[in-house]
Amino acid sequence: MRKHLITVINAAGRAVPLEVNGQPVVPYKGVGKHRPEGNKYGPPIATCIDFPDNGNKSVETLKQALIQAGLKDGMTISTHHHFRNGDLIANQIFDIAAELGIKDLVWFPSASFDCHTPLIKYLSDGTIHHIEGSMNGALGHFASEGKMKGVGVLRSHGGRYQAMQDGEVKIDIAVIAAPAADTFGNANGLDGPAACGLLGFALADAQYASKVIVVTDHVVPFPCWPWQIQGNYVDYVVKVDKVGIPEKIVSGTTEITKSPDRLLLAELTARFCEEAGIIRDGFSFQAGAGGTALSIGIYFADLLRAKGIKSRFARGGSNKYLVEMLEEGLVDFILDGQTFDLEGVRSMRENHGHVDTSPFTSYNYHSKGNFAQLVDVVILGATEVDIQFNANVVTHSDGALLHGIGGWQNCLFAKCTILPVPLFRDRIPVIRDHVTTLCGPGELIDVIVTERGIAINPLRHDLLDSLKDSSLPIRTIQELKDEAEKICGVPAAAKFDDEIIAVIKWVDGTVIDSVRRLSVT
Amino acid sequence: MRKHLITVINAAGRAVPLEVNGQPVVPYKGVGKHRPEGNKYGPPIATCIDFPDNGNKSVETLKQALIQAGLKDGMTISTHHHFRNGDLIANQIFDIAAELGIKDLVWFPSASFDCHTPLIKYLSDGTIHHIEGSMNGALGHFASEGKMKGVGVLRSHGGRYQAMQDGEVKIDIAVIAAPAADTFGNANGLDGPAACGLLGFALADAQYASKVIVVTDHVVPFPCWPWQIQGNYVDYVVKVDKVGIPEKIVSGTTEITKSPDRLLLAELTARFCEEAGIIRDGFSFQAGAGGTALSIGIYFADLLRAKGIKSRFARGGSNKYLVEMLEEGLVDFILDGQTFDLEGVRSMRENHGHVDTSPFTSYNYHSKGNFAQLVDVVILGATEVDIQFNANVVTHSDGALLHGIGGWQNCLFAKCTILPVPLFRDRIPVIRDHVTTLCGPGELIDVIVTERGIAINPLRHDLLDSLKDSSLPIRTIQELKDEAEKICGVPAAAKFDDEIIAVIKWVDGTVIDSVRRLSVT
Repeated sequence: MRKHLITVINAAGRAVPLEVNGQPVVPYKGVGKHRPEGNKYGPPIATCIDFPDNGNKSVETLKQALIQAGLKDGMTISTHHHFRNGDLIANQIFDIAAELGIKDLVWFPSASFDCHTPLIKYLSDGTIHHIEGSMNGALGHFASEGKMKGVGVLRSHGGRYQAMQDGEVKIDIAVIAAPAADTFGNANGLDGPAACGLLGFALADAQYASKVIVVTDHVVPFPCWPWQIQGNYVDYVVKVDKVGIPEKIVSGTTEITKSPDRLLLAELTARFCEEAGIIRDGFSFQAGAGGTALSIGIYFADLLRAKGIKSRFARGGSNKYLVEMLEEGLVDFILDGQTFDLEGVRSMRENHGHVDTSPFTSYNYHSKGNFAQLVDVVILGATEVDIQFNANVVTHSDGALLHGIGGWQNCLFAKCTILPVPLFRDRIPVIRDHVTTLCGPGELIDVIVTERGIAINPLRHDLLDSLKDSSLPIRTIQELKDEAEKICGVPAAAKFDDEIIAVIKWVDGTVIDSVRRLSVT
Repeated sequence: MRKHLITVINAAGRAVPLEVNGQPVVPYKGVGKHRPEGNKYGPPIATCIDFPDNGNKSVETLKQALIQAGLKDGMTISTHHHFRNGDLIANQIFDIAAELGIKDLVWFPSASFDCHTPLIKYLSDGTIHHIEGSMNGALGHFASEGKMKGVGVLRSHGGRYQAMQDGEVKIDIAVIAAPAADTFGNANGLDGPAACGLLGFALADAQYASKVIVVTDHVVPFPCWPWQIQGNYVDYVVKVDKVGIPEKIVSGTTEITKSPDRLLLAELTARFCEEAGIIRDGFSFQAGAGGTALSIGIYFADLLRAKGIKSRFARGGSNKYLVEMLEEGLVDFILDGQTFDLEGVRSMRENHGHVDTSPFTSYNYHSKGNFAQLVDVVILGATEVDIQFNANVVTHSDGALLHGIGGWQNCLFAKCTILPVPLFRDRIPVIRDHVTTLCGPGELIDVIVTERGIAINPLRHDLLDSLKDSSLPIRTIQELKDEAEKICGVPAAAKFDDEIIAVIKWVDGTVIDSVRRLSVT
């Protein structure tokens, strides 16, 4: 199906198909240029007639629940990454599907992890037709080698919500693994042996899927409160022995960096924010969970303490450092999209100001605004940037698809977007003439911080003005690129075949770029 | 339009129209007999393009917001009764509409109160075509006299959600009066001078209306948390001097009764529950806010204390008595649908176990179950019951439309429904051969408690068995009716013209009965 896709050049100059997996798609038109038409998707109307009077929706096994939900060829099945690399449920679904001889399923995860590598056998034997979601590590390699039957579709967390809301993706069966649930289907991630914090990535699935199965290892009496997932959306509840591996739920990158290079990036970023006037009473920020981002949070905390001011809210994945800031009173609210460690889970359970958010509140672009745009400064990573400030987060410079988009695209709408990146990785320069894969348009990326200088997007006259007398090493992006190439040489471009193995959606559902099969020569 | 409605006899034997206000409707088919088809309604897809980058949706005045929302002839405008008789906003909307010369609006309130009596002038001058919602007091009389241009449509709280969800009612502009909000539109009822508790009646409106205006007198910095209304659904935020009159927010009936007759009803009801085995560890109950219901709560509390057990949850409007039970540990959760006094507001703010619910979670029949059906015993009122255990809550025996349905119909799905009613009111017997208006089918009503005896629905063999050796005055409903008529005589039937002035919807959107114009002769 993907072999002979007709492509057009989109507004970003990238060749993208007009059809993906047999469905028409819209090429990217530019930031804020695509206006959606029509109405939101409405899932089938349910009725209490079909549900037990006593509210008990228990089903003995996941297999039974999938059969009752009508599992059949070609369906779209969704799962979620609240347990990250400790997920035990997604693989089971496809084990069951394979056992039942089901073919051509679409897997629509909110993200995939190493633990999902066993699914390669189902991508190979036709149980799974393709993945719509992140393809990390081995799954990414498998796709990059052109081995997946269909074309992968990568979306941001907000884009995933948008796709369901707008009816671009219709989920037949959503399977929501939950640390705690009652038999009516109310569920949360706060209690039970596999407590993981919030279940926000499953919100859209609960709202829009035709059938919803909650799987838990910790059944509590009605009501399971808070009901991060509302039982009124749930068809079946399955009790299993173990829903997730707690020790793998915690993200691997929740310690501050000890690398001197990364600490320098963190310090430069924090100093930039201060000199740009961003760190003021009531400001807001989002930093990821990587070591550099965590270190920036530490710098912010020091600055707030020194100035005797506080931040109104911090967005993003929560961790022990953010929780410390909250509990010390340096920040009023954590608007949490994903809980990265057990201190985050505890805090969400205990602190009024630690708030459970979702891709709907934070990221959905087809909405009446969202939270991401209210953030004063967001600090993100990238695998590559280019001299137009465009950035890539999904492929490496060798062209292999290895990461998902996460909330990255959505966060670019913050008032100031900063990408701290090393000037080179493994002697391969990070700043290119053109990014291998376009994930974020340069007009939304304001500042690139490297260990050898900081480049401000020329569109940001205000930032250039604020920093014009700075002692910080402000450079042009071309200067930074030249310096890297002086040290490492000009990097070779990745080698691709023509075949499109995945497309990258923009936040509005349009296709911003394609990923091609790695050349085997 | 309503003059010559063609009627059919529905499954309850009531003559109902096939068309209301030009829209086709489905006659009632019996409890659990109407199966909905198709998909939920999806409102127009929005886009962040149309909303300010900084998230500030403030508009100077309500008039300006209504104009920007596109107010025009024939639109459906919704408001909510969280402030009950202290609402200041609904009337202003129609003042503005009249000033702008707008005609034929449909007012879709979650309930109306005496404070809305001024709207009669807009029903008279054609600004408002008809009301879909409760018509209390003067508005009910106005409708009953045949003066409303269109046909009124009365729905339960759950039916109101169902109608929006299923697309039977499409709201053009929802105006949500909120005690606290931020300029992004996040709003709650917990803070500010007009704090009223929750805003659950506006949930469906936020989700399904094309345009949503939040009006508040208390703007807080983003984020307004908890966001009972999510700003992502909100188009405009208007700051006014005063959004509600706090002293009128509190329901008038929040003191326990001192009437010996009502205390007897309460005592008989509580004793019945105990003898029927309903009061056991972990049981759940719902009682309204009337004096009798409150007194029953007091009896329940005494029983729980005496037995050393506790209730898992209490549903329904919260008040100081329920809050005392929660704080004493006699009940684990209050699943609150409407906060009836300031102790309820405080408790919702402070107590983890005092939970904000909505007609979606509690009452929607076109859902995958709802909370109402999980309640062990619900105690409700009625204006009339009949010997088939059918009940009426909207008209008096003289035929005048004077009350809304509230959550009454939805609550009938509890495991045991008890109606404590006096045998007569103003010397008019309450038990009739046929209720004047059918609101609740007898098969869902289990027990009628009167001061002179308790009638158990013959369908409930289990209850008849449990109570067969009871010292309580168990009688047949016919015996109770006969006794009342011996004292007061046989009541005259209400006198009606043919003209249908309102219809009563069942929880599934079908028409269970019609209300006709009062005969002027």
